[in-house]
Amino acid sequence: MRIADRVTITEVGPRDGLQNLDRWIPTEDKIAMIDALVDAGIASVEATSFVHPKVVPQMADAEEVMSGIDRRPGVTYKALVPNRRGAERAVAVRTNVLVALITVSEAYSRKNQNRGVQDLVHNVAEILRVGHASGTRVDIAVGMAFFCPYEGPIAEDRVEALFSQLIDLGGERFYVATTSGMADPAHVHRLCERLLSRWPQIELGIHLHNTNGMALANALAAMDAGVRTFEGSICGLGGGVVMPHGMAVGNVPTEDLVHMFSEMGVYTGIDLPSIGDAARRVGELLGVEPASYVGRGHTKAQTMLKGQATPPYHPA
Amino acid sequence: MRIADRVTITEVGPRDGLQNLDRWIPTEDKIAMIDALVDAGIASVEATSFVHPKVVPQMADAEEVMSGIDRRPGVTYKALVPNRRGAERAVAVRTNVLVALITVSEAYSRKNQNRGVQDLVHNVAEILRVGHASGTRVDIAVGMAFFCPYEGPIAEDRVEALFSQLIDLGGERFYVATTSGMADPAHVHRLCERLLSRWPQIELGIHLHNTNGMALANALAAMDAGVRTFEGSICGLGGGVVMPHGMAVGNVPTEDLVHMFSEMGVYTGIDLPSIGDAARRVGELLGVEPASYVGRGHTKAQTMLKGQATPPYHPA
Repeated sequence: MRIADRVTITEVGPRDGLQNLDRWIPTEDKIAMIDALVDAGIASVEATSFVHPKVVPQMADAEEVMSGIDRRPGVTYKALVPNRRGAERAVAVRTNVLVALITVSEAYSRKNQNRGVQDLVHNVAEILRVGHASGTRVDIAVGMAFFCPYEGPIAEDRVEALFSQLIDLGGERFYVATTSGMADPAHVHRLCERLLSRWPQIELGIHLHNTNGMALANALAAMDAGVRTFEGSICGLGGGVVMPHGMAVGNVPTEDLVHMFSEMGVYTGIDLPSIGDAARRVGELLGVEPASYVGRGHTKAQTMLKGQATPPYHPA
Repeated sequence: MRIADRVTITEVGPRDGLQNLDRWIPTEDKIAMIDALVDAGIASVEATSFVHPKVVPQMADAEEVMSGIDRRPGVTYKALVPNRRGAERAVAVRTNVLVALITVSEAYSRKNQNRGVQDLVHNVAEILRVGHASGTRVDIAVGMAFFCPYEGPIAEDRVEALFSQLIDLGGERFYVATTSGMADPAHVHRLCERLLSRWPQIELGIHLHNTNGMALANALAAMDAGVRTFEGSICGLGGGVVMPHGMAVGNVPTEDLVHMFSEMGVYTGIDLPSIGDAARRVGELLGVEPASYVGRGHTKAQTMLKGQATPPYHPA
């Protein structure tokens, strides 16, 4: 098992978390949320989405959010951009990184975005051009890279073929996303290792949903395969896909990712008590309970028993 | 990352799960629970504990349970035995494996069992003698091997020194337990690799609690280090330690362990739908909700969308 010295955590709660809330979050609360996360040590944050407000009303204030943030030196402020127009809007307000989205699943792409995968490849090409022209970094998020609720398992050949196209277009930084939250550690390891061994020059991150409870194990497998950037969402907010049974398809909570890496001695630059506090502050701000182990106090520091009564006899 | 071809799952719910319930479970329900688990493919089950009924009243029917089970060929029926007397009781009703318990933490040992660790080493020696004399296999469960809520982190040197004593006494099969549920994958990997590289002849399993949410990641790390036996508890029942804040300190749910290994292509001999059904049956029998992802239907088969409406636009 390869354990990295350091990894980067990207916070996606302000975008992937908030877009899934069914009520409007005031712009000042969004900004307060982002600033609180940066205060806790987050150095990379997906702050909003420059999508059309009719499509995702929750992100209608993208310009106001990006302009209202207290920009800190050394912090990367990212935004999802669905197309050229979104990319231009994002660049106009000094977004540091444009996140271009594409999914491997043809069925999901057509149902969710009403466009085929090859059509979205052209879209990514346009976003890359906006990035190139403006000197803005572009990350490409490759969603439904493991399992699609419409198509089932996604063959690694298809992911590799799509990467090949995107790299030919100039793509250099990628995320693979377990969008349905149904990936397993062997699959994650296999795919990440395959992509990184064919294209060692790319930067590959992973975006983890946690439908099946394997997100932390998947993070471990990805790290072993060479991945060094992990996306999480504070309080486990959000999720990208509507699933049956009213399931929570949350992102892996940032604070639980930080907890695991921190315990393992992997440097994230984020202090565990600070991110725990940030989770509580964000929870209060949004009126939600942090759906995380750290948020419920399940850390070593908080489970030490000091002067408590003898527990009843319960063999280990 | 080393992925095993096959692993063994030991079910501990009938012992570690039920001993923590605050109400009496009728003997016939305990037996029905064990038989249902074996029906689902479980080939190793810790069925009860031969502890004094005044200490753990829930296990007062240990003989009746062990005698009432429908013994199936190829299935190993295990029981926890706290001492020589317990071991003799277990052997008298044809228990296949005696599980001798010891904890690394001196403070926990004194508070929980009112005996020091060295005193319990003599206890294990007595149990090993009963096993040897009767031709019954003895597994040694080494609890609080990672983090103790009284002592804090447990140094690997101490675990190794205890193993050395126990191996000198004739111990051959061991479990290390993350009793407080606060282990991380790097620690698990380091300890298991150290023990297996010094004593490659031993059989080393892991007993996983999930207080910090890292249990599946810990299972993955243990597998990478060479561990091939994993203990889980159906529905995530149980937990060994009383923690502050009213925390659930459950075991890792057997069905979630089976899910991860099954998705990874690691053979367990246990069919995923069958163990999911068993979790629901046990949940009904005991009147509890399965605290697991599989129990809530978070499997690929159950999250496929067939003919459902187009989901709203939510970028991945």
